Amino acid sequence: MNRIAIERKVLSENDRIAEELRTALNGTDTLSLNFIGSPGAGKTALLERTLERLPRGTRAAVLTGDIQTENDANRLRRYGYPVRQITTGGACHLDARMVETHLRDWIGDGLDLLLIENVGNLVCPTSYDLGEDAKVVVLSVAEGEDKPLKYPGIFRKAELMLLNKVDLLPYVPFNPELARENARRIHPEIEIIETSYTTGAGFDRWLNWLASRVERKKVSVKPAGEAVATA
Amino acid sequence: MNRIAIERKVLSENDRIAEELRTALNGTDTLSLNFIGSPGAGKTALLERTLERLPRGTRAAVLTGDIQTENDANRLRRYGYPVRQITTGGACHLDARMVETHLRDWIGDGLDLLLIENVGNLVCPTSYDLGEDAKVVVLSVAEGEDKPLKYPGIFRKAELMLLNKVDLLPYVPFNPELARENARRIHPEIEIIETSYTTGAGFDRWLNWLASRVERKKVSVKPAGEAVATA
Repeated sequence: MNRIAIERKVLSENDRIAEELRTALNGTDTLSLNFIGSPGAGKTALLERTLERLPRGTRAAVLTGDIQTENDANRLRRYGYPVRQITTGGACHLDARMVETHLRDWIGDGLDLLLIENVGNLVCPTSYDLGEDAKVVVLSVAEGEDKPLKYPGIFRKAELMLLNKVDLLPYVPFNPELARENARRIHPEIEIIETSYTTGAGFDRWLNWLASRVERKKVSVKPAGEAVATA
Repeated sequence: MNRIAIERKVLSENDRIAEELRTALNGTDTLSLNFIGSPGAGKTALLERTLERLPRGTRAAVLTGDIQTENDANRLRRYGYPVRQITTGGACHLDARMVETHLRDWIGDGLDLLLIENVGNLVCPTSYDLGEDAKVVVLSVAEGEDKPLKYPGIFRKAELMLLNKVDLLPYVPFNPELARENARRIHPEIEIIETSYTTGAGFDRWLNWLASRVERKKVSVKPAGEAVATA
């Protein structure tokens, strides 16, 4: 078997596990999001502020992936939600098996929201379905507005782009309008929200997006008859 | 053959081509550097300023890798040196075969310096020898000082870390001393130079490093007798 055939086999095995995960998460009305971005795009800080501001009573949990260290899990644990670190030990992305292994005993808890922070990498995580409802790409304004054109895969697959660290806009040569244009050239329907951990900018909009998606998930996974009844 | 065996075979085939490249580049006293960093770490801007400030008469050339677009090559071509874009079409790193293919007809030109800008990715490029004399890791201060601990592979293999975008230090929560400590925990001998495209900070030191390595290369590849004679 050659390399490409092996790669296809690995991906199709991943897809199978991801589908099982998706079915399990649909069964508990859990909205699951897969956050993908470069190292240092601000994914962890963004999740920290998100956990801090989640509506009371939200049943949320976080899986956070890194090659090494428990740093991110330690940062995220301060907000009172269950958090698990997945250390890949070298792999450049999470895969569905890693998520399944770390998620297994949480499935029965009836989570509203599962936040998965992928390994910092704008390329490899794109190919691995984790059973999520949506991918969210996090792009920092320190990275340059050309990134959607250079790394089109993730911008094509993500439903939402969080254009992050907008507090740095006065200090970096970054044109947000051009970044939006570039993202929309790759994916015309992508939603875009500008965010900053430092100033809190954009978090109202981002948390509204999140709340509406949690809500929509609860409606959409009901049998057709019930969904009509609640409409 | 399983996936790991295939991976080993790919890497050993890569190593073979990289060794051929190394022999060819040694034959022409060409110093070759492989620049690795996250998307948006500032690799291209750093190379732009480097080309702008290279001593007159330096025979330099650039290979620049991206998944898509010719953007970087177009930026780098403005400085009068030969530049070629390698678009990987999806692959998350350059490999020795891509370099060999794009470099082939330059080998006879007797270059002093070959600058290779890898795909923006702090993980995958680390495993692929490109026949270079040294890897240089570029870390932007916007990325956070924990990156050497989270992505130890590249910091272990790089001879030099360019701590880049230091002009942003007043605006980001980044402790340069801690970043240095973290890099040295992974690789005690790593050299570190702080740089900024915007202010030009650190470029004298970086260009001196480069000049001394170009010089050392010319001495080191001479037969032992000659090297003694010039000492």
